[in-house]
Parts: sequence; structure tokens; C-alpha cells
Amino acid sequence: MVPQWIIEKKRDGLPLTEEEIRGFIQGYTSGAIPDYQMAALAMAVYFRGMSFDETAILTDAMMRTGRLVDTSSIPGPKADKHSTGGIGDKVSLVLAPLVACCGVAVPMISGRGLGITGGTLDKLEAIPGYRTNLSLEEFVGVLRQCGCSLIGQTAELVPADRKLYALRDVTGTVPSVPLIAASIMSKKLAEGIDALVLDVKWGKGAFMKTLESARDLARTMVEIGRRVGKRTVAVITDMNQPLGRMVGNALEIVETVQALRGKGPRDLMEVTLELGAHMLTLTGRARSHMEAFAALQRELASGAAWERLKTMVRLHGGRAEVLDTPEQLLTARLQVAVPAPRTGYVADVDAELIGKACVVLGAGRQKVEDTVDPAVGVANLAKIGARIEEGQPLLVLHANDEAKLNTARGLVQSAFRFAANPVVPPKLVVEVVR
Amino acid sequence: MVPQWIIEKKRDGLPLTEEEIRGFIQGYTSGAIPDYQMAALAMAVYFRGMSFDETAILTDAMMRTGRLVDTSSIPGPKADKHSTGGIGDKVSLVLAPLVACCGVAVPMISGRGLGITGGTLDKLEAIPGYRTNLSLEEFVGVLRQCGCSLIGQTAELVPADRKLYALRDVTGTVPSVPLIAASIMSKKLAEGIDALVLDVKWGKGAFMKTLESARDLARTMVEIGRRVGKRTVAVITDMNQPLGRMVGNALEIVETVQALRGKGPRDLMEVTLELGAHMLTLTGRARSHMEAFAALQRELASGAAWERLKTMVRLHGGRAEVLDTPEQLLTARLQVAVPAPRTGYVADVDAELIGKACVVLGAGRQKVEDTVDPAVGVANLAKIGARIEEGQPLLVLHANDEAKLNTARGLVQSAFRFAANPVVPPKLVVEVVR
Repeated sequence: MVPQWIIEKKRDGLPLTEEEIRGFIQGYTSGAIPDYQMAALAMAVYFRGMSFDETAILTDAMMRTGRLVDTSSIPGPKADKHSTGGIGDKVSLVLAPLVACCGVAVPMISGRGLGITGGTLDKLEAIPGYRTNLSLEEFVGVLRQCGCSLIGQTAELVPADRKLYALRDVTGTVPSVPLIAASIMSKKLAEGIDALVLDVKWGKGAFMKTLESARDLARTMVEIGRRVGKRTVAVITDMNQPLGRMVGNALEIVETVQALRGKGPRDLMEVTLELGAHMLTLTGRARSHMEAFAALQRELASGAAWERLKTMVRLHGGRAEVLDTPEQLLTARLQVAVPAPRTGYVADVDAELIGKACVVLGAGRQKVEDTVDPAVGVANLAKIGARIEEGQPLLVLHANDEAKLNTARGLVQSAFRFAANPVVPPKLVVEVVR
Repeated sequence: MVPQWIIEKKRDGLPLTEEEIRGFIQGYTSGAIPDYQMAALAMAVYFRGMSFDETAILTDAMMRTGRLVDTSSIPGPKADKHSTGGIGDKVSLVLAPLVACCGVAVPMISGRGLGITGGTLDKLEAIPGYRTNLSLEEFVGVLRQCGCSLIGQTAELVPADRKLYALRDVTGTVPSVPLIAASIMSKKLAEGIDALVLDVKWGKGAFMKTLESARDLARTMVEIGRRVGKRTVAVITDMNQPLGRMVGNALEIVETVQALRGKGPRDLMEVTLELGAHMLTLTGRARSHMEAFAALQRELASGAAWERLKTMVRLHGGRAEVLDTPEQLLTARLQVAVPAPRTGYVADVDAELIGKACVVLGAGRQKVEDTVDPAVGVANLAKIGARIEEGQPLLVLHANDEAKLNTARGLVQSAFRFAANPVVPPKLVVEVVR
């Protein structure tokens, strides 16, 4: 196997064989194939694409460069959810305990925020004591005890992806659908799950800025799932405005608790229930979408899901009692409402600008090595369709620095558009790809 | 300057600025920009191309990463010729002393053979004692004494090209016209010349397999020349059959001597005189192509060019007296004629297959680190249009190994096609690009 011949084949638009893809990924991971050959191949893939067959082989090859989570000791079906990321997306925190209550174990390995996109690990770490860095053995132990566990990527899982992702980041090869799909799917399929539900977000606050590109990614990931024999469904959801009314790490813990106590915002609940219903039907825990909705709503209403979150937090070393009064986490020194400049209906809330404001405040990272401030962000966001009077708050900025507060204020003010007549909120669950 | 932003710009089809191109090349040469970012940029250039303006800036940026030859101490105009390479192409050896006799200094930095393409340095080294590795100071000294010098690339000249070429070779980014053009032109323009004539070969034995791709490369190099202010002309010549009747290092020295003694094959002389005439007109040494031809033919007929070659060889440490009876260099143990299988006219002599046979015999290199056998190759090649009787020799193989001889015999036999009726040889000088 001569690496440059494989690069040349892809460059010339010819499909790569299973042996070529596996050999290249193994060679790259071991160091036998240098970064510069992987970079050239990644750029050729950017231009030429990969068939679903090639992408599925790439995914499997990447997955097999590391350990696989052994979930055989956990009874019942296992499923996970992945989101391509957005602003205010705390769905995982609500969904994992909720689905676990319905008898489906959720072994969820999550990421940190980067750029405008928040990360589940950063949100969990807003809870004092919560350990995201469990070993795989501890992870399986927590799963056995409470049916869900949320941890971070470990060094043993999919080393090819860690290496390739860092390379893509500095070689202009991030926005390639087969490479994105293989990166996501290789990590999720290493979790030892039976079924996977994908939340592919599109819009101003999403990685995929157009519905078409979101469909392309969704279709690719579902086809990978089919080829590797994992039941997989993708749900395309709107991320033009933030999800829910809180953006920021502790703020999103507050909203998570509201959601599990039956007081979640409509849009957050709609996405959570839709994704959860697919997890139950894919694993056979519900015979229909309606039956699944009913089961999920039952576990919400009974308080079982809310208790399950606290149990999971406790098993991760977190001070679960803090969750009973999560507002104590909102310690930002400056909490300043931004008033509406006019009376009318909210016509747009640009998720990207809200996300940028949160990064400015310190809730997110500009670079991987940045640290986040758990207390800052945006609260009580007015959503599209809301009727608002001049001078009423559009949102409340939580900040620890005056200069940052002022920059963030400018960004959030420019995020809103208003209309004189009532505005219909956008369709949230756009379509299901299976 | 963030390297990945430049990669992304090119990936997205946007033109790069002068600052971006110069910064990238300087950073790459100094090591500040790693190989993997250069590889990604090269692949993006492969797909997106570069404008003539970008390519000229790239050429100049590469040229300025190293020393420039200072030819200011040499009186009169200086010009060089570059060939994109072919089979049996010994034009440089005839042309340099010939043009020098007409009062144009020729500071020629040449390469070695790789793959089926021969290299001028390998041919020169078939002359006992000839040193191709002069310092730039020695090079200028020889030029001052005899008006021409042929040496190899030195480490001080265009280090960016040495580094980039090695990287392109293993990353599938060799066949990109702007990268090829910048590689050639950066080295030639570092020679301190006033004018440059390019021999862009097309056909089976050339790097450019189609006339269209040869035109593209020729046009790009002429446009670079225009932008950096060097008079440049490209001549597109046929390389479907080998040039001349000898292929192999010592064999081509024999044919060079024949040419300079007035007994050169028609095609070799046609290309040599065409290129030489452009060198004389571009530098103002002749007012017209016809006047240039006359001057070149005078220096050939007088024996001056022949004496000039011997002087140059002597100044390079070579045993010039060997050139009086160059057949003594043909020391191959096995010299075997390959007979024509039928009577008729030669309709095709596939230069690529003849080149491959010579590589098999040991005249060329499969890998950069291979050594060449100066004595082996193909002699007395029948050319397209020749009338030949069954059993008469098509060529004579010079070999030092029976097994290699047999493999080469099979290759050269398959290189020939025959016709019952007379065949017109192909047009050799196809067009001039200026």
C-alpha cells in the first residue's frame, strides 16, 4: 500500500477500497503515514467526497483504532443521542435521565464547547463536584446503577479521530460531510449502543447553515448506521434562534432542572420528546411514536426523570442537592436586562449573535485551551413570536466584567428583529431522516 | 497571517493576495508552516488552480527563498533553455555550446533523470571526470571563460522548491500546472538570465500527455515570464517518439558529438536550431529567426560549437579528449540488435515504452536514490517514416544483464507499429507560445 497512490486515486475521483481506507487510517494512527499525507487525502476528500460505502468503512476503521465500550453487563437496550451542536442546546441533560427511566440505558460521551457552540461537559461542570472524566469502567458502573452516564471523550476511544480532528482544524478540511459524519459516528458507535438518534441542527446558530447541507449530513450518518448495522434515525431541527430561554453553563443547568420539573420551555420540550421517542421506538421500548411520547411524559410528570438526574449527578461525585435550588449557581456579579427598543413582535433572534455574545461574556471558548466561566450567559430570552412592549427586557445578561458586558450588549441588541404584526415561530422539528 | 485561513481561501476558490502567497512560502521554507499545511494548500491548488498573477507571485516568492546567481560579471546577454523532459532529449548538450558561440552566455542548471525521462546531468557524468557539482562561484567562472556551463541544482538555490517538490511527490500534488510552472520558473529565473526559451514536450514520452495540457503549461510559464519581466518564449514539440536515434547516457553523448560535428539526426537538429534561434532573437543577437538560423548553422559548420563543448567539458574537469572517439564510452557487454518482424514503414515508436526499456536496462532511475549505468540504452533507433525490411535491425540494445536485456527487448518490440504504405513523420515543432 503506497499512501500517495491512495491520495491520487481519491484526487482523481475514484472510489477507495476497504483495504485502502483501513490501511490508511491504521497507518495514520500508528504514525507510519505522516500528517502531510493525511492532510492531502482530507483535502482530496473535501473536493471529491466519499460514497456512503466508503464513509461507512472510514467510520468503522476509525472506531476500531481504539477501545470499544463494553456494555454487555448492562441489561436491556442501549441508545444514545448526538447533536451537531447549537446555542442553548441542553437537550442531553434532560433526555438522558428521562430515557433511562423508560428502560433504555444511555451511555453518552459528550464534548466541550468550541466557538459559539456550547458543550454538555461544560454545562455539567457547572454543578460542583461533577466528574466528567470517569474511566470507562466507572462509566459502565454508573450506567449499571442509574441507566445513564454523561462523560467526556477518553484517550482510549477512537484515537484516529482525535488526531484527524486536530489536523483538519488547521488544514481547512473541517467542512467535509464524509469527514464530519465519520468523526461523529466513529465516536458514537464506539459506545456499545444498539440505536442512535441524531439531532442535526440547521440555521444561523448551527454548523450547517443551510437545510440542504443538514439533510446531506443527516442522510450520510443514517446511511453509515445502516451499513454498520446500527438502527439510526436523524431528526433535523431548527437552530436559527437559540433553544430554550437560557444560554450559558449554570443558566442551562437551571433550565434543565425546570424542564425535568415540568416547567421547561416549549421548544426545548418538543425537541427532547421527539428525540426521546425515537430512542424508545428504535430500541423496541415503545411500539409507536405516540406510545413513546406517553411513556416519556409519564416519567416527566411523576418526577422520576428529575430524581434520575440527581442520582446520576451524585454517582459522578456532584453535589446533587444544589439542583434543588439551582439558582444559587447564578453568581454573576452583573445581571443586566436589555430592554426592547420598541413595541411589537419578536421576528428574529439570531442564534449566532447570541452565541457570540456568550463567548464574549466567557461562557464559551475561542480556542481549545480557553477556560469557561460557568456563571455567565444570557437568561430569560424572548423568543420569536413573543409580544413585547418597549422597555420590557428582551433578555438578562449575566456577566462578570463591565467591558465584556458592553460588547455582549451590542451583539444581543443586533440579534433581534421586530415586526408590527404577529409572527409565527419557525417549525422546530423540520424532518426525520431514516 | 493564519495559515489555515489561506488554505480555506484557496479551497473556496478565492484568489490569494501577494502577502498571503509570500508569507506562506517564506513560512514553509523556514519551517514555521508545517508540511501538512503546505500539503493541504497544494491539494487545494490542484483543484482550484491559480491565476497567472498568483502563479507569478508564487514563482517569485519561491525564487527569493534562496541565493540568485550573480551573472553581472559576464559580458553580453545571458539566456537559458528548459525542457519539460523526454526520451533521447540531448538538446541542452548541443545547444549550450552552440548558442555560446553566437555570443549569448548560457548558465544552465539541469536535473537528473527520474522515471522514463532522462536527465542532462546523468548524460554529462558519462564523460569521465565531468563535475556537475560546481559551486556558484565556479559556475560563473566557467561561464566567463567559455560562455556556457551545465551544472546541477545547488542547495543554496530555491530551497522552497526542493522542499515543496519532495512533498508534492508523496502527496499526489505533482500534476498541477501552476505548481509545475512555479517549480520550473523559480529555478530558471534564479540563474541570472535575460531571456528564457522553454521546450514544452507533449506526447507519449512527455510529462504532458496531451497537446492541450502542454499548451496550458506553456502559456502559464510564458505569462509568469511576462509578469516578472523576463523575455520568455515556449516552443511546443512532439515527444510521441524519442528524439534522435540514441537513448541512454553515453549513447546520447555519442549522438551529441555527432550533432556538433554536423552529423546529427534531422529531428534533433530541428529542435536544437528552433530553440537556439529563439535564444538569439530574444536577446537581440539576431534580428530575425532566419538570421539566427544562419548564425547557428555557421557556428556548427565551422566546428566552433564542437570545440566549445570540449572546452566546457575540460573546464568542468572532464576528459575532453574522450569526446574525439566517444564510441569508447559504449562499454555495455551485450549489444544486441532487435530485428523488424515484417517489411514496411515504421508507423509508431512509442517513446514511453522505449523510455521504460531504458529504465529496465539501468539507464534511468525508478527511485531518486537509484544509480544509473552510463553504458546501457538503445542505439540506432528506426524512426517513424523509415522503410524497413523484415529482419533488419529496428534498434540495438546495449545491456549489461541478460535478464534485463530480455525484459527490455519485449518492451521495445511492443513500442513499434508498422504500415504497408509510406508514413509521414509527425510535425516536430508544433507551435510557439509567446
